[in-house]
Amino acid sequence: MPVDSHATIEVTAYQWVPPFVEGRIKDLRVRWALEEIGRPYREHLIGGIFEEKPSEYLADQPFGQVPVYKEDGLTLFESGAILLHIGEQDERLLPRDATRRGQAISWMIAALNSVEPTLQTLIVLSVAGAEQDWQGAAMDAARPFAEKRLAQLARALGDRKWLGGAFTVGDLVMIDVLRAVPAQMLAAHPNLTAYVERGTKRPAFERALKAQLAAYASNAPRDA
Amino acid sequence: MPVDSHATIEVTAYQWVPPFVEGRIKDLRVRWALEEIGRPYREHLIGGIFEEKPSEYLADQPFGQVPVYKEDGLTLFESGAILLHIGEQDERLLPRDATRRGQAISWMIAALNSVEPTLQTLIVLSVAGAEQDWQGAAMDAARPFAEKRLAQLARALGDRKWLGGAFTVGDLVMIDVLRAVPAQMLAAHPNLTAYVERGTKRPAFERALKAQLAAYASNAPRDA
Repeated sequence: MPVDSHATIEVTAYQWVPPFVEGRIKDLRVRWALEEIGRPYREHLIGGIFEEKPSEYLADQPFGQVPVYKEDGLTLFESGAILLHIGEQDERLLPRDATRRGQAISWMIAALNSVEPTLQTLIVLSVAGAEQDWQGAAMDAARPFAEKRLAQLARALGDRKWLGGAFTVGDLVMIDVLRAVPAQMLAAHPNLTAYVERGTKRPAFERALKAQLAAYASNAPRDA
Repeated sequence: MPVDSHATIEVTAYQWVPPFVEGRIKDLRVRWALEEIGRPYREHLIGGIFEEKPSEYLADQPFGQVPVYKEDGLTLFESGAILLHIGEQDERLLPRDATRRGQAISWMIAALNSVEPTLQTLIVLSVAGAEQDWQGAAMDAARPFAEKRLAQLARALGDRKWLGGAFTVGDLVMIDVLRAVPAQMLAAHPNLTAYVERGTKRPAFERALKAQLAAYASNAPRDA
Protein backbone atom coordinates (compact mmCIF):
# COMPACT_ATOMS: atom_id res chain seq x y z
CA MET A 1 0.00 0.00 0.00
CA PRO A 2 1.79 3.18 -1.19
CA VAL A 3 0.37 5.46 1.52
CA ASP A 4 3.32 5.62 3.92
CA SER A 5 3.94 8.46 6.36
CA HIS A 6 7.70 8.04 5.90
CA ALA A 7 7.66 8.23 2.09
CA THR A 8 9.81 10.75 0.20
CA ILE A 9 6.95 11.79 -2.07
CA GLU A 10 4.26 14.05 -0.59
CA VAL A 11 0.85 14.53 -2.18
CA THR A 12 -1.71 17.03 -0.90
CA ALA A 13 -5.34 16.03 -0.60
CA TYR A 14 -8.39 17.32 1.23
CA GLN A 15 -9.01 15.93 4.69
CA TRP A 16 -12.72 15.94 3.87
CA VAL A 17 -15.03 17.03 1.05
CA PRO A 18 -18.82 17.07 0.82
CA PRO A 19 -20.32 13.88 -0.67
CA PHE A 20 -21.24 15.48 -4.02
CA VAL A 21 -17.57 15.91 -4.95
CA GLU A 22 -16.30 12.68 -3.37
CA GLY A 23 -14.05 10.75 -5.72
CA ARG A 24 -13.75 13.73 -8.09
CA ILE A 25 -10.73 15.50 -6.58
CA LYS A 26 -7.63 15.23 -8.68
CA ASP A 27 -5.20 13.87 -6.13
CA LEU A 28 -6.93 10.63 -7.17
CA ARG A 29 -5.08 10.71 -10.50
CA VAL A 30 -1.72 11.05 -8.76
CA ARG A 31 -2.52 8.39 -6.16
CA TRP A 32 -3.59 6.06 -9.00
CA ALA A 33 -0.33 6.60 -10.93
CA LEU A 34 1.78 5.97 -7.84
CA GLU A 35 -0.23 2.82 -7.06
CA GLU A 36 0.31 1.57 -10.63
CA ILE A 37 4.08 1.60 -10.13
CA GLY A 38 4.13 0.82 -6.41
CA ARG A 39 5.80 4.06 -5.33
CA PRO A 40 4.99 5.05 -1.74
CA TYR A 41 3.73 8.54 -0.92
CA ARG A 42 2.68 10.40 2.19
CA GLU A 43 -0.50 12.43 2.35
CA HIS A 44 -0.52 16.08 3.32
CA LEU A 45 -4.16 16.66 4.17
CA ILE A 46 -5.55 20.18 4.00
CA GLY A 47 -9.02 21.56 4.72
CA GLY A 48 -11.47 23.91 3.10
CA ILE A 49 -12.13 22.78 -0.47
CA PHE A 50 -14.31 25.80 -1.17
CA GLU A 51 -12.36 28.28 0.97
CA GLU A 52 -9.51 30.60 0.05
CA LYS A 53 -6.24 28.86 0.87
CA PRO A 54 -3.48 30.34 3.05
CA SER A 55 -0.74 32.20 1.19
CA GLU A 56 1.87 29.53 1.90
CA TYR A 57 -0.31 27.00 0.07
CA LEU A 58 -0.93 29.41 -2.81
CA ALA A 59 2.84 29.78 -3.19
CA ASP A 60 2.90 26.08 -4.15
CA GLN A 61 -0.49 25.92 -5.91
CA PRO A 62 -1.50 29.31 -7.34
CA PHE A 63 -5.13 28.25 -7.90
CA GLY A 64 -5.57 26.78 -4.42
CA GLN A 65 -6.37 23.34 -5.81
CA VAL A 66 -5.10 19.91 -4.89
CA PRO A 67 -2.82 18.13 -5.47
CA VAL A 68 0.61 19.61 -4.87
CA TYR A 69 3.42 17.08 -5.31
CA LYS A 70 6.72 17.34 -3.47
CA GLU A 71 9.77 15.12 -3.86
CA ASP A 72 13.39 15.84 -2.94
CA GLY A 73 13.01 19.62 -3.14
CA LEU A 74 10.93 19.53 -6.32
CA THR A 75 7.43 21.07 -6.11
CA LEU A 76 4.87 20.49 -8.88
CA PHE A 77 1.24 21.50 -9.30
CA GLU A 78 -1.46 20.43 -11.77
CA SER A 79 -2.12 16.70 -11.85
CA GLY A 80 -1.22 16.55 -15.55
CA ALA A 81 2.25 17.94 -14.86
CA ILE A 82 2.70 15.59 -11.92
CA LEU A 83 1.68 12.57 -14.00
CA LEU A 84 4.23 13.47 -16.67
CA HIS A 85 6.92 13.64 -13.98
CA ILE A 86 5.90 10.28 -12.51
CA GLY A 87 5.65 8.78 -16.00
CA GLU A 88 9.19 9.89 -16.87
CA GLN A 89 10.39 7.60 -14.12
CA ASP A 90 8.51 4.45 -15.13
CA GLU A 91 7.74 3.11 -18.59
CA ARG A 92 4.67 1.29 -17.28
CA LEU A 93 3.01 4.72 -17.35
CA LEU A 94 4.93 6.47 -20.13
CA PRO A 95 6.61 4.33 -22.79
CA ARG A 96 10.22 5.07 -23.75
CA ASP A 97 9.64 4.41 -27.46
CA ALA A 98 9.24 7.83 -29.14
CA THR A 99 6.08 6.94 -31.08
CA ARG A 100 4.27 5.34 -28.15
CA ARG A 101 5.46 8.09 -25.76
CA GLY A 102 4.16 10.75 -28.15
CA GLN A 103 0.80 9.06 -28.41
CA ALA A 104 0.50 8.66 -24.63
CA ILE A 105 1.21 12.35 -24.04
CA SER A 106 -1.08 13.41 -26.90
CA TRP A 107 -3.93 11.39 -25.35
CA MET A 108 -3.25 12.78 -21.89
CA ILE A 109 -3.37 16.35 -23.17
CA ALA A 110 -6.48 15.51 -25.22
CA ALA A 111 -8.18 14.34 -22.02
CA LEU A 112 -7.22 17.56 -20.23
CA ASN A 113 -7.84 20.11 -22.98
CA SER A 114 -10.25 18.60 -25.55
CA VAL A 115 -12.55 16.33 -23.53
CA GLU A 116 -12.60 17.55 -19.91
CA PRO A 117 -13.40 21.21 -20.74
CA THR A 118 -16.63 20.19 -22.52
CA LEU A 119 -17.68 18.31 -19.39
CA GLN A 120 -16.61 21.13 -17.13
CA THR A 121 -19.00 23.45 -18.94
CA LEU A 122 -21.83 21.09 -17.98
CA ILE A 123 -20.60 20.98 -14.38
CA VAL A 124 -20.42 24.79 -14.20
CA LEU A 125 -23.97 25.06 -15.54
CA SER A 126 -25.22 22.39 -13.16
CA VAL A 127 -23.72 24.24 -10.19
CA ALA A 128 -24.20 27.88 -11.19
CA GLY A 129 -27.55 27.21 -12.81
CA ALA A 130 -29.08 25.20 -9.98
CA GLU A 131 -32.78 26.05 -9.61
CA GLN A 132 -32.53 28.72 -12.34
CA ASP A 133 -35.19 28.73 -15.04
CA TRP A 134 -32.53 28.99 -17.76
CA GLN A 135 -30.58 25.94 -16.63
CA GLY A 136 -32.29 23.33 -18.79
CA ALA A 137 -32.00 25.34 -22.00
CA ALA A 138 -28.36 26.24 -21.37
CA MET A 139 -27.39 22.65 -20.60
CA ASP A 140 -29.27 21.39 -23.66
CA ALA A 141 -27.28 23.84 -25.77
CA ALA A 142 -23.91 22.93 -24.21
CA ARG A 143 -24.42 19.16 -24.16
CA PRO A 144 -23.76 18.57 -27.89
CA PHE A 145 -20.19 19.90 -27.46
CA ALA A 146 -19.50 17.12 -24.95
CA GLU A 147 -21.41 14.51 -26.95
CA LYS A 148 -19.35 15.27 -30.04
CA ARG A 149 -16.10 14.72 -28.16
CA LEU A 150 -17.36 11.45 -26.71
CA ALA A 151 -18.40 10.21 -30.16
CA GLN A 152 -14.97 11.08 -31.55
CA LEU A 153 -13.27 9.36 -28.64
CA ALA A 154 -15.44 6.26 -29.01
CA ARG A 155 -14.55 6.02 -32.69
CA ALA A 156 -10.83 6.42 -31.92
CA LEU A 157 -10.88 3.78 -29.19
CA GLY A 158 -12.83 1.31 -31.33
CA ASP A 159 -12.40 -2.18 -29.93
CA ARG A 160 -8.98 -1.58 -28.42
CA LYS A 161 -8.45 -2.16 -24.74
CA TRP A 162 -6.47 1.06 -24.17
CA LEU A 163 -6.02 4.15 -26.36
CA GLY A 164 -2.42 3.44 -27.30
CA GLY A 165 -2.49 -0.36 -27.13
CA ALA A 166 -0.94 -0.65 -23.65
CA PHE A 167 -2.15 1.30 -20.60
CA THR A 168 -0.45 4.70 -20.14
CA VAL A 169 -0.95 8.02 -18.36
CA GLY A 170 -3.16 8.90 -21.34
CA ASP A 171 -5.66 6.21 -20.35
CA LEU A 172 -5.34 7.05 -16.67
CA VAL A 173 -6.38 10.67 -17.19
CA MET A 174 -8.96 9.93 -19.90
CA ILE A 175 -10.68 7.32 -17.73
CA ASP A 176 -10.82 9.65 -14.75
CA VAL A 177 -12.22 12.38 -16.99
CA LEU A 178 -14.89 9.98 -18.29
CA ARG A 179 -15.89 9.09 -14.72
CA ALA A 180 -17.52 12.56 -14.61
CA VAL A 181 -19.71 11.88 -17.65
CA PRO A 182 -23.39 11.40 -16.75
CA ALA A 183 -24.21 7.67 -17.05
CA GLN A 184 -26.90 8.10 -19.69
CA MET A 185 -24.55 10.16 -21.85
CA LEU A 186 -21.75 7.61 -21.62
CA ALA A 187 -24.22 4.77 -22.31
CA ALA A 188 -24.48 5.93 -25.93
CA HIS A 189 -21.01 4.43 -26.38
CA PRO A 190 -20.76 0.89 -25.00
CA ASN A 191 -17.04 0.74 -25.76
CA LEU A 192 -16.42 3.81 -23.60
CA THR A 193 -18.53 2.36 -20.80
CA ALA A 194 -16.45 -0.82 -20.95
CA TYR A 195 -13.23 1.20 -21.11
CA VAL A 196 -14.10 3.09 -17.92
CA GLU A 197 -15.05 -0.18 -16.19
CA ARG A 198 -11.76 -1.74 -17.31
CA GLY A 199 -9.80 1.19 -15.93
CA THR A 200 -11.63 1.49 -12.63
CA LYS A 201 -11.33 -2.26 -12.00
CA ARG A 202 -7.54 -2.02 -12.06
CA PRO A 203 -6.34 -2.82 -8.53
CA ALA A 204 -4.25 0.36 -8.52
CA PHE A 205 -7.33 2.50 -9.16
CA GLU A 206 -9.29 0.70 -6.46
CA ARG A 207 -6.52 1.22 -3.91
CA ALA A 208 -6.15 4.89 -4.87
CA LEU A 209 -9.86 5.61 -4.49
CA LYS A 210 -10.01 3.69 -1.21
CA ALA A 211 -7.12 5.74 0.20
CA GLN A 212 -8.71 9.02 -0.88
CA LEU A 213 -12.05 8.10 0.68
CA ALA A 214 -10.41 6.75 3.84
CA ALA A 215 -8.99 10.19 4.57
CA TYR A 216 -12.44 11.75 4.21
CA ALA A 217 -14.03 9.10 6.45
CA SER A 218 -11.48 9.77 9.18
CA ASN A 219 -12.04 13.51 9.08
CA ALA A 220 -15.77 13.87 8.45
CA PRO A 221 -17.33 16.68 10.50
CA ARG A 222 -19.71 15.41 13.17
CA ASP A 223 -22.64 17.19 11.57
CA ALA A 224 -21.99 15.85 8.06
CA MET B 1 11.34 32.76 -41.54
CA PRO B 2 10.61 29.18 -40.30
CA VAL B 3 7.88 28.46 -42.89
CA ASP B 4 9.85 26.45 -45.45
CA SER B 5 8.29 23.97 -47.84
CA HIS B 6 11.39 21.75 -47.60
CA ALA B 7 11.42 21.54 -43.77
CA THR B 8 11.43 18.21 -41.95
CA ILE B 9 8.73 19.29 -39.50
CA GLU B 10 5.15 19.44 -40.82
CA VAL B 11 2.36 21.34 -39.03
CA THR B 12 -1.27 21.22 -40.14
CA ALA B 13 -3.30 24.41 -40.28
CA TYR B 14 -6.53 25.52 -41.92
CA GLN B 15 -6.22 27.04 -45.36
CA TRP B 16 -8.92 29.51 -44.37
CA VAL B 17 -11.24 30.20 -41.40
CA PRO B 18 -14.07 32.70 -40.97
CA PRO B 19 -12.95 36.04 -39.48
CA PHE B 20 -14.53 35.40 -36.04
CA VAL B 21 -12.04 32.60 -35.29
CA GLU B 22 -9.03 34.18 -37.00
CA GLY B 23 -5.94 34.07 -34.82
CA ARG B 24 -7.59 31.59 -32.41
CA ILE B 25 -6.62 28.30 -34.04
CA LYS B 26 -4.04 26.38 -32.09
CA ASP B 27 -1.46 25.81 -34.80
CA LEU B 28 -0.53 29.36 -33.74
CA ARG B 29 0.97 27.99 -30.50
CA VAL B 30 3.14 25.52 -32.40
CA ARG B 31 4.19 28.09 -35.02
CA TRP B 32 5.12 30.46 -32.17
CA ALA B 33 7.25 27.86 -30.42
CA LEU B 34 9.09 26.97 -33.61
CA GLU B 35 9.67 30.66 -34.34
CA GLU B 36 11.10 31.16 -30.84
CA ILE B 37 13.84 28.62 -31.53
CA GLY B 38 14.20 29.25 -35.27
CA ARG B 39 13.23 25.74 -36.37
CA PRO B 40 11.76 25.63 -39.89
CA TYR B 41 8.46 23.88 -40.57
CA ARG B 42 6.29 23.28 -43.57
CA GLU B 43 2.55 23.89 -43.53
CA HIS B 44 0.04 21.21 -44.44
CA LEU B 45 -3.10 23.24 -45.08
CA ILE B 46 -6.47 21.55 -44.78
CA GLY B 47 -9.99 22.86 -45.28
CA GLY B 48 -13.29 22.74 -43.49
CA ILE B 49 -12.85 23.96 -39.92
CA PHE B 50 -16.47 23.14 -39.06
CA GLU B 51 -16.79 20.03 -41.24
CA GLU B 52 -16.16 16.39 -40.44
CA LYS B 53 -12.62 15.52 -41.45
CA PRO B 54 -11.69 12.61 -43.73
CA SER B 55 -10.82 9.36 -41.98
CA GLU B 56 -7.12 9.61 -42.87
CA TYR B 57 -6.94 12.90 -40.98
CA LEU B 58 -8.87 11.48 -38.02
CA ALA B 59 -6.31 8.67 -37.83
CA ASP B 60 -3.73 11.34 -36.95
CA GLN B 61 -6.05 13.69 -35.02
CA PRO B 62 -9.01 11.83 -33.47
CA PHE B 63 -10.94 15.05 -32.75
CA GLY B 64 -10.48 16.51 -36.22
CA GLN B 65 -8.68 19.56 -34.85
CA VAL B 66 -5.48 21.29 -35.90
CA PRO B 67 -2.57 21.06 -35.50
CA VAL B 68 -1.06 17.68 -36.24
CA TYR B 69 2.74 17.66 -35.99
CA LYS B 70 4.92 15.29 -38.00
CA GLU B 71 8.67 14.90 -37.80
CA ASP B 72 10.82 11.98 -38.91
CA GLY B 73 8.04 9.41 -38.61
CA LEU B 74 6.71 10.81 -35.32
CA THR B 75 3.08 12.00 -35.32
CA LEU B 76 1.71 14.08 -32.44
CA PHE B 77 -1.64 15.75 -31.82
CA GLU B 78 -2.80 18.33 -29.24
CA SER B 79 -0.78 21.54 -29.19
CA GLY B 80 0.19 20.97 -25.53
CA ALA B 81 1.79 17.62 -26.38
CA ILE B 82 3.53 19.12 -29.39
CA LEU B 83 4.92 22.00 -27.31
CA LEU B 84 6.34 19.57 -24.76
CA HIS B 85 8.08 17.70 -27.58
CA ILE B 86 9.50 20.91 -29.07
CA GLY B 87 10.49 22.13 -25.62
CA GLU B 88 12.42 18.92 -24.89
CA GLN B 89 14.70 19.87 -27.75
CA ASP B 90 15.47 23.45 -26.71
CA GLU B 91 15.97 24.89 -23.25
CA ARG B 92 14.86 28.34 -24.44
CA LEU B 93 11.34 26.89 -24.20
CA LEU B 94 11.72 24.25 -21.49
CA PRO B 95 14.55 24.65 -18.96
CA ARG B 96 16.78 21.66 -18.18
CA ASP B 97 16.98 22.47 -14.46
CA ALA B 98 14.47 20.18 -12.69
CA THR B 99 12.81 22.90 -10.61
CA ARG B 100 12.40 25.35 -13.47
CA ARG B 101 11.34 22.57 -15.85
CA GLY B 102 8.70 21.42 -13.37
CA GLN B 103 7.35 24.92 -12.95
CA ALA B 104 7.20 25.48 -16.72
CA ILE B 105 5.23 22.28 -17.27
CA SER B 106 2.98 22.98 -14.28
CA TRP B 107 2.14 26.40 -15.71
CA MET B 108 1.53 25.00 -19.18
CA ILE B 109 -0.89 22.40 -17.82
CA ALA B 110 -2.53 25.06 -15.64
CA ALA B 111 -3.17 27.13 -18.75
CA LEU B 112 -4.69 24.13 -20.53
CA ASN B 113 -6.71 22.61 -17.70
CA SER B 114 -7.37 25.29 -15.05
CA VAL B 115 -7.65 28.55 -16.99
CA GLU B 116 -8.69 27.77 -20.58
CA PRO B 117 -11.70 25.57 -19.64
CA THR B 118 -13.32 28.43 -17.72
CA LEU B 119 -12.99 30.61 -20.83
CA GLN B 120 -14.19 27.83 -23.08
CA THR B 121 -17.44 27.68 -21.12
CA LEU B 122 -18.01 31.35 -21.98
CA ILE B 123 -17.20 30.67 -25.64
CA VAL B 124 -19.62 27.72 -25.74
CA LEU B 125 -22.37 29.87 -24.23
CA SER B 126 -21.63 32.75 -26.59
CA VAL B 127 -21.91 30.41 -29.60
CA ALA B 128 -24.65 28.01 -28.48
CA GLY B 129 -26.61 30.72 -26.71
CA ALA B 130 -26.56 33.28 -29.50
CA GLU B 131 -29.89 35.11 -29.69
CA GLN B 132 -31.36 32.91 -26.92
CA ASP B 133 -33.18 34.64 -24.09
CA TRP B 134 -31.25 32.64 -21.49
CA GLN B 135 -27.82 33.60 -22.78
CA GLY B 136 -27.24 36.65 -20.59
CA ALA B 137 -28.19 34.92 -17.37
CA ALA B 138 -26.12 31.82 -18.15
CA MET B 139 -23.04 33.85 -19.04
CA ASP B 140 -23.43 35.99 -15.91
CA ALA B 141 -23.49 32.80 -13.86
CA ALA B 142 -20.46 31.26 -15.60
CA ARG B 143 -18.31 34.40 -15.72
CA PRO B 144 -17.24 34.32 -12.03
CA PHE B 145 -15.51 30.95 -12.61
CA ALA B 146 -13.27 32.60 -15.21
CA GLU B 147 -12.83 35.78 -13.17
CA LYS B 148 -11.66 33.77 -10.17
CA ARG B 149 -8.97 32.03 -12.22
CA LEU B 150 -7.79 35.35 -13.67
CA ALA B 151 -7.56 36.90 -10.20
CA GLN B 152 -5.53 33.91 -8.96
CA LEU B 153 -3.26 34.10 -12.00
CA ALA B 154 -2.78 37.87 -11.57
CA ARG B 155 -1.77 37.37 -7.94
CA ALA B 156 0.67 34.60 -8.91
CA LEU B 157 2.27 36.64 -11.68
CA GLY B 158 2.60 39.73 -9.49
CA ASP B 159 5.18 42.07 -10.97
CA ARG B 160 7.23 39.37 -12.65
CA LYS B 161 7.83 39.52 -16.37
CA TRP B 162 7.11 35.81 -16.96
CA LEU B 163 5.48 33.17 -14.74
CA GLY B 164 8.67 31.26 -14.02
CA GLY B 165 11.16 34.14 -14.24
CA ALA B 166 12.33 33.40 -17.80
CA PHE B 167 9.97 32.82 -20.76
CA THR B 168 8.92 29.16 -21.23
CA VAL B 169 6.23 27.06 -22.92
CA GLY B 170 4.16 27.82 -19.81
CA ASP B 171 4.07 31.51 -20.72
CA LEU B 172 3.55 30.76 -24.40
CA VAL B 173 0.38 28.76 -23.76
CA MET B 174 -0.90 30.99 -20.94
CA ILE B 175 -0.53 34.12 -23.06
CA ASP B 176 -2.35 32.53 -25.98
CA VAL B 177 -5.11 31.40 -23.62
CA LEU B 178 -5.40 34.94 -22.23
CA ARG B 179 -5.74 36.34 -25.76
CA ALA B 180 -9.27 34.87 -25.71
CA VAL B 181 -10.30 36.76 -22.57
CA PRO B 182 -12.74 39.61 -23.30
CA ALA B 183 -10.84 42.92 -23.05
CA GLN B 184 -12.98 44.36 -20.27
CA MET B 185 -12.51 41.21 -18.16
CA LEU B 186 -8.73 41.24 -18.59
CA ALA B 187 -8.63 44.97 -17.84
CA ALA B 188 -9.42 44.22 -14.18
CA HIS B 189 -5.82 42.99 -13.94
CA PRO B 190 -3.32 45.49 -15.42
CA ASN B 191 -0.42 43.10 -14.84
CA LEU B 192 -2.14 40.43 -16.97
CA THR B 193 -2.88 42.98 -19.70
CA ALA B 194 0.80 43.97 -19.71
CA TYR B 195 1.84 40.28 -19.67
CA VAL B 196 -0.24 39.55 -22.78
CA GLU B 197 1.17 42.63 -24.50
CA ARG B 198 4.71 41.56 -23.59
CA GLY B 199 4.11 38.10 -25.04
CA THR B 200 2.38 39.19 -28.22
CA LYS B 201 5.10 41.77 -28.94
CA ARG B 202 7.75 39.05 -29.08
CA PRO B 203 8.99 38.91 -32.68
CA ALA B 204 8.40 35.14 -32.73
CA PHE B 205 4.72 35.61 -31.89
CA GLU B 206 4.33 38.32 -34.51
CA ARG B 207 5.92 36.13 -37.18
CA ALA B 208 3.77 33.13 -36.18
CA LEU B 209 0.52 35.09 -36.36
CA LYS B 210 1.54 36.68 -39.65
CA ALA B 211 2.24 33.25 -41.17
CA GLN B 212 -1.09 31.86 -39.96
CA LEU B 213 -3.04 34.82 -41.35
CA ALA B 214 -1.06 34.78 -44.62
CA ALA B 215 -2.37 31.29 -45.35
CA TYR B 216 -5.94 32.44 -44.79
CA ALA B 217 -5.47 35.52 -47.00
CA SER B 218 -4.14 33.36 -49.84
CA ASN B 219 -7.06 30.97 -49.65
CA ALA B 220 -10.05 33.17 -48.80
CA PRO B 221 -13.19 32.18 -50.73
CA ARG B 222 -14.24 34.76 -53.29
CA ASP B 223 -17.53 35.39 -51.53
CA ALA B 224 -15.99 35.89 -48.04
